Amino acid sequence: MDLTDAGLELKPIGRVESPLIDPAAAPKQGDEGSPEAWLVFEPGLLDGLHGIRPGDRVLVLTWLDRARRDVLRTHPRDDLSNPEQGVFNTRSPHRPNPIGLHEVEIVSIDGLRLQVRDLEPKTGEVELDVEGETGVAGR
Amino acid sequence: MDLTDAGLELKPIGRVESPLIDPAAAPKQGDEGSPEAWLVFEPGLLDGLHGIRPGDRVLVLTWLDRARRDVLRTHPRDDLSNPEQGVFNTRSPHRPNPIGLHEVEIVSIDGLRLQVRDLEPKTGEVELDVEGETGVAGR
Repeated sequence: MDLTDAGLELKPIGRVESPLIDPAAAPKQGDEGSPEAWLVFEPGLLDGLHGIRPGDRVLVLTWLDRARRDVLRTHPRDDLSNPEQGVFNTRSPHRPNPIGLHEVEIVSIDGLRLQVRDLEPKTGEVELDVEGETGVAGR
Repeated sequence: MDLTDAGLELKPIGRVESPLIDPAAAPKQGDEGSPEAWLVFEPGLLDGLHGIRPGDRVLVLTWLDRARRDVLRTHPRDDLSNPEQGVFNTRSPHRPNPIGLHEVEIVSIDGLRLQVRDLEPKTGEVELDVEGETGVAGR
């Protein structure tokens, strides 16, 4: 895909395969009981995974395609007893650019497939990026 | 902007304004020497900032428009003595979807302008998102 002139356009790098298919059953955050899931990368991206090892923690960015992009205030965790907040003060999926951030642990690696723990997204959700800690100051 | 049919297209929510660099000015504090900078939001997004307070730490997502999107391996921190890694194991700006992640501290707030500390200042860089901690498990 040529994105030279595409502006702020994202391309999927893969998809999530997870036992979670029912949004109502998904935990609000990944460390609240998510089953293990797989990140399945597009062909041609194998070099980008070089150096990732089981036990590593990485940040996964996903596209929250069910999100509403016109919401600016929300009750955190969909709990009306929580005072309303601006979406930029929260991790709500409903925000102008619905990018989900998920810190996960790598369980195992099989070519273009990474098995991860603590990921809450559902099957079919688009992966945008994986960011490891290598090269971050002090690591 | 109507993004209903726009697919994975991002919209800028604002821009970074870095301060003038004046060698005679008193040095600013920052984790790695970054001066304080401003996040300037688009008109109409004020509600999205509700609840953000000075002293809060938030994640800022930016679009790294100078990045190369066809790079899959890199030497972390551009240091050839570091073993080559897949970009998904790093925070390199060069990656298929060049989204920058920056954890910053809010210094002050003036309407649609947030003054922040610890942001690598690049005037004009597009802001994509700000994600606070409200509603994250245990907070």
